[in-house]
Amino acid sequence: MAPKYAPSLRSRLAPLLLCLQTGLILLSAFYFEIKETDDRKASINFYPEFQDVNAMVILGFGFLCTFLVRYGFSGSGFNLLVAVVATQWGIILNGIKFWYYTGKIRVDLKSLVVAEMYTASALISIGAVLGKTNPVQLTFIALLEVSGFVLNEWLLQTLLKVRPLNSIMLLHVFGALFGVMLTWILNRKGSEQGFEKEKFDRKSGLFSMLGTLFLWMFWPSFNSVLVDDWTPWKKLQAVGSTYLALAVSAVTAAGVSVLCNPKGKLNLIQLQSCILAGGVAVGVSISAIHQPWEAMTIGFTAAIISTTGFNYLKKHMLLVFECHDTCAILSTHGLPGLLGWLAKLALHIKDCDDHNVAIRFAVFHICTLFITIIISLIMGILTGMSPLNEPFVIRSYYCIILLQTIIIKLLNVRNNLQDNDYSFAICTQHNS
Amino acid sequence: MAPKYAPSLRSRLAPLLLCLQTGLILLSAFYFEIKETDDRKASINFYPEFQDVNAMVILGFGFLCTFLVRYGFSGSGFNLLVAVVATQWGIILNGIKFWYYTGKIRVDLKSLVVAEMYTASALISIGAVLGKTNPVQLTFIALLEVSGFVLNEWLLQTLLKVRPLNSIMLLHVFGALFGVMLTWILNRKGSEQGFEKEKFDRKSGLFSMLGTLFLWMFWPSFNSVLVDDWTPWKKLQAVGSTYLALAVSAVTAAGVSVLCNPKGKLNLIQLQSCILAGGVAVGVSISAIHQPWEAMTIGFTAAIISTTGFNYLKKHMLLVFECHDTCAILSTHGLPGLLGWLAKLALHIKDCDDHNVAIRFAVFHICTLFITIIISLIMGILTGMSPLNEPFVIRSYYCIILLQTIIIKLLNVRNNLQDNDYSFAICTQHNS
Amino acid sequence: MAPKYAPSLRSRLAPLLLCLQTGLILLSAFYFEIKETDDRKASINFYPEFQDVNAMVILGFGFLCTFLVRYGFSGSGFNLLVAVVATQWGIILNGIKFWYYTGKIRVDLKSLVVAEMYTASALISIGAVLGKTNPVQLTFIALLEVSGFVLNEWLLQTLLKVRPLNSIMLLHVFGALFGVMLTWILNRKGSEQGFEKEKFDRKSGLFSMLGTLFLWMFWPSFNSVLVDDWTPWKKLQAVGSTYLALAVSAVTAAGVSVLCNPKGKLNLIQLQSCILAGGVAVGVSISAIHQPWEAMTIGFTAAIISTTGFNYLKKHMLLVFECHDTCAILSTHGLPGLLGWLAKLALHIKDCDDHNVAIRFAVFHICTLFITIIISLIMGILTGMSPLNEPFVIRSYYCIILLQTIIIKLLNVRNNLQDNDYSFAICTQHNS
Repeated sequence: MAPKYAPSLRSRLAPLLLCLQTGLILLSAFYFEIKETDDRKASINFYPEFQDVNAMVILGFGFLCTFLVRYGFSGSGFNLLVAVVATQWGIILNGIKFWYYTGKIRVDLKSLVVAEMYTASALISIGAVLGKTNPVQLTFIALLEVSGFVLNEWLLQTLLKVRPLNSIMLLHVFGALFGVMLTWILNRKGSEQGFEKEKFDRKSGLFSMLGTLFLWMFWPSFNSVLVDDWTPWKKLQAVGSTYLALAVSAVTAAGVSVLCNPKGKLNLIQLQSCILAGGVAVGVSISAIHQPWEAMTIGFTAAIISTTGFNYLKKHMLLVFECHDTCAILSTHGLPGLLGWLAKLALHIKDCDDHNVAIRFAVFHICTLFITIIISLIMGILTGMSPLNEPFVIRSYYCIILLQTIIIKLLNVRNNLQDNDYSFAICTQHNS
Repeated sequence: MAPKYAPSLRSRLAPLLLCLQTGLILLSAFYFEIKETDDRKASINFYPEFQDVNAMVILGFGFLCTFLVRYGFSGSGFNLLVAVVATQWGIILNGIKFWYYTGKIRVDLKSLVVAEMYTASALISIGAVLGKTNPVQLTFIALLEVSGFVLNEWLLQTLLKVRPLNSIMLLHVFGALFGVMLTWILNRKGSEQGFEKEKFDRKSGLFSMLGTLFLWMFWPSFNSVLVDDWTPWKKLQAVGSTYLALAVSAVTAAGVSVLCNPKGKLNLIQLQSCILAGGVAVGVSISAIHQPWEAMTIGFTAAIISTTGFNYLKKHMLLVFECHDTCAILSTHGLPGLLGWLAKLALHIKDCDDHNVAIRFAVFHICTLFITIIISLIMGILTGMSPLNEPFVIRSYYCIILLQTIIIKLLNVRNNLQDNDYSFAICTQHNS
Repeated sequence: MAPKYAPSLRSRLAPLLLCLQTGLILLSAFYFEIKETDDRKASINFYPEFQDVNAMVILGFGFLCTFLVRYGFSGSGFNLLVAVVATQWGIILNGIKFWYYTGKIRVDLKSLVVAEMYTASALISIGAVLGKTNPVQLTFIALLEVSGFVLNEWLLQTLLKVRPLNSIMLLHVFGALFGVMLTWILNRKGSEQGFEKEKFDRKSGLFSMLGTLFLWMFWPSFNSVLVDDWTPWKKLQAVGSTYLALAVSAVTAAGVSVLCNPKGKLNLIQLQSCILAGGVAVGVSISAIHQPWEAMTIGFTAAIISTTGFNYLKKHMLLVFECHDTCAILSTHGLPGLLGWLAKLALHIKDCDDHNVAIRFAVFHICTLFITIIISLIMGILTGMSPLNEPFVIRSYYCIILLQTIIIKLLNVRNNLQDNDYSFAICTQHNS
């Protein structure tokens, strides 16, 4: 796990990438199809929205972590590599349900957007181990994270009938917990010297500012892209809410950051992480927000939690748990995600007139989070434990294939529940 | 006013931002609404155009001024801070007219775009004092500039029935004159040592080139976004004219820049400012341009004026008036804006068959500029004088509240003129 | 040809740019018009697609070559200069056919997109001589390259009835061969010391990564923008195919790059060129691709060829032919373009049931490539030979005017073939 990974790259990265890519092309030859469809989301009209999400994944995340001086240049390259591998893998996992019925995995703009969202989840996790891992490990982490996230999404949709939009928006919580577990396990195995790369300078800071601003700008697209557009004003509401929350959290993060700083200065690296907190929190609670002030209050609280977490949590996690979280993803994505979950619960209960319905929704909502947390922790520990340390190519392949098999088997079971698929059993009238 | 602003940031910036944001959230709880609307400009279809303007304000202006080596990193952060504060304030001021009739301030994509245009005006002004002011001052400057610009817009619409598109496009002239007055007042009060930050190097230059290219690319969106789209070819004309003017002014600015340089070299920092001159000038005269060659000639002249101004005006202003204009906004936005105003006058008169109508339009058009210049100069002097120097939080709040009260009072008066609101009394057939 | 070009810039660049621009404005005064049209491609709805191509040309190519440390800052400025000159020239050349019938050159979003594609072709060529030429030379090269490309396009459309989409997509092959010939001729004339600028460092590398990612992201727009949209799913197919090919070529280029590197490291500068190979190859063969696996296989092969070429070809060209190709455009655009041509031939023949039709298509397709290669080589040699070295302003003008005259004369001839213009004589049912 030491940073001296250069000698082994040739013997491992090249065969890994070329075999993986050949496998994916073979798979595509038999199963992929690009087909006309009635769904507007899958047609060419969806292209601008796809490009916005694409810009966040490729440019936003790619430049976000370039503040690490000695890692920035390779980091932005590794990010692209991981993103395209994870997206291809995401297209396949997302397409399995179509494959089950039609024998084909459909590639259209909607499936690409969903796959890029899985990728975003993997890139969040990778933020925790950045600068301490080589590209071979990053590729495996991304494949396993996406697999785990799809497993979680499938469980939520099968067991609790959670809507796709609501389950996919938990990507922030899933990615953050997965990443923290991963870095915790990888760290304990003796790579204390791995943190030397964590320095920054002003020039690198401008690159990460660029990445942050790309994320900040296109976050309204990210949160609204999967909102059903046969109700266009819902989409408008998602865009407006996200924009307001981001604006509020930028101002608030700057204020709290100055308050927390011992010299009373504005820490821009911290600011870069925390101005996005509002977007994360509003994303998780997007389906429950009806008023601008709700979005603004969520943005305000998210920025306070995120900035405070960045200041104290990261240091304490390192001291107490020996858990080193390079990009502070727990404060940036984990805590605001949990806040969004809580806000959604509160807003739903506030809107429920019937006491019983409110309690049933609360139980349902708590179960959703509980499953997500369990799966993300288990997958993070599993990913961190065996396959990343020693002669692992075969073991990892085995692991991925195993997962895929499980998913397909489960899909088999799910088929029996098909009729009421995507419908919503509990508190239907509110969880929309 | 000295650059040693660090010690006071904690005690002033944090309470300012947190109080301001809390106030805005409280206001939003009572007055904001996101609502379905029939206006296409306010609906979700307007989203790509909103994003283009957003990219100019957040990325374009954010990176434009990173050429200041010692200020670039903090500058791009301060720009975001100022932009989000000004945009929220702009939404409120722009929404007051709706509030007057419906009791609510509407937040939709059109109101966001208009608010971002106010913000652009504030960011232009800030270009004159960059590197010499701390974020507390920048925040106040932005709030006061937006208030002043809305006041000016309201006066133009009330007194002269100027159309919203035409009054908002004067933002370049307003912002430039406001900024020049501001830096003139701030400077005289003894901050001669504040210019040490004004250096650049090649690496920082690439960041500001990035900002410039974002502005250059999305300028056609900026100029066409508020053009009425029930006449789509007018929008096409606005886009095409702006693109041609920008292309011409890029070539011309390069030529003139080489001519003016004592060593015959291409000064890229100068080029970055002056290639935008065509966009500014065409923006101000957009409603009068009917032929591509008109746009190209305006772009040509604007680039010559802007480049010449950059070379001689900035130096002379510093020597003669002790007025230090960091980003040369007078040459970049002020002079091309005035040229655009002149071009519009000339084009209108050329198109007028009737001698009397032409004279009436000229009087109307001169009054428009006159009011804008007066208001911008007064607001710039007021902003520069009292509230920015001494224990000022209360005084400034008072100042803003005062302004708001004036605006609302005036709106009251305006209500009586409601029936012929937005209609056009003088030379109606030409000013469209 | 030595890099000491500073002294002559003032006496040459300034009059060149100002005369050129004045000439273009005069031309526009008599011939340009922005007009309403029924073609959706020319209307305002086409604006987002135009902006994507614009972003590739201005931001993508502008930052792609900033990895040259001593050239990056000026390089990004020169790129803008060349791009706007070439685009204006492209509008005129592209508009000559309309001018022939209506007396006007139409400026709308389609003509701008086509002109920007001509510009992309010129910018590819310029990649071969970057860091070894001054802006006066770059301007002439761009004007001549665009003229040559339009001549080639016109020959293909007149002699072989090649569709506009298919002829314009050969821009990669044309640009690469033109550029290689150009640098070969310029180099031989004694500028061996001109390569000192070809160094890079990590910071500059991040800027060129930014340019690469812009190109990578918007390549689906580039390949799909001219696909007829009365069949929206064809456009969807173009977007999906391009995305998949780009993803595959990113993974493959990383794998092959590690394999080829003597130390087994990932060479990011090399990666930046080679991840685009898939987009180039798919672009050339876009009209023949019907299945995702076809696009992915083309992307895979293109990345292998491009990476291998980058490693061995560039060095050998320098040693054997004394031909120094700064940005390795032969490997990045030339070879993948030829591969795309080959893939299109193979896919068409595979789809042809009739043996005779297949042979006729092969002959047609080989002729298309043959003409393109001949014209690009001749134009590259002509451009490199006379007009760039000695007192040349008059000679060059003469050269451009000559070309223009030839084109107009030929258009005269073409008019007689007007009736079956753009129709397709050979293998009509397949070349769509």
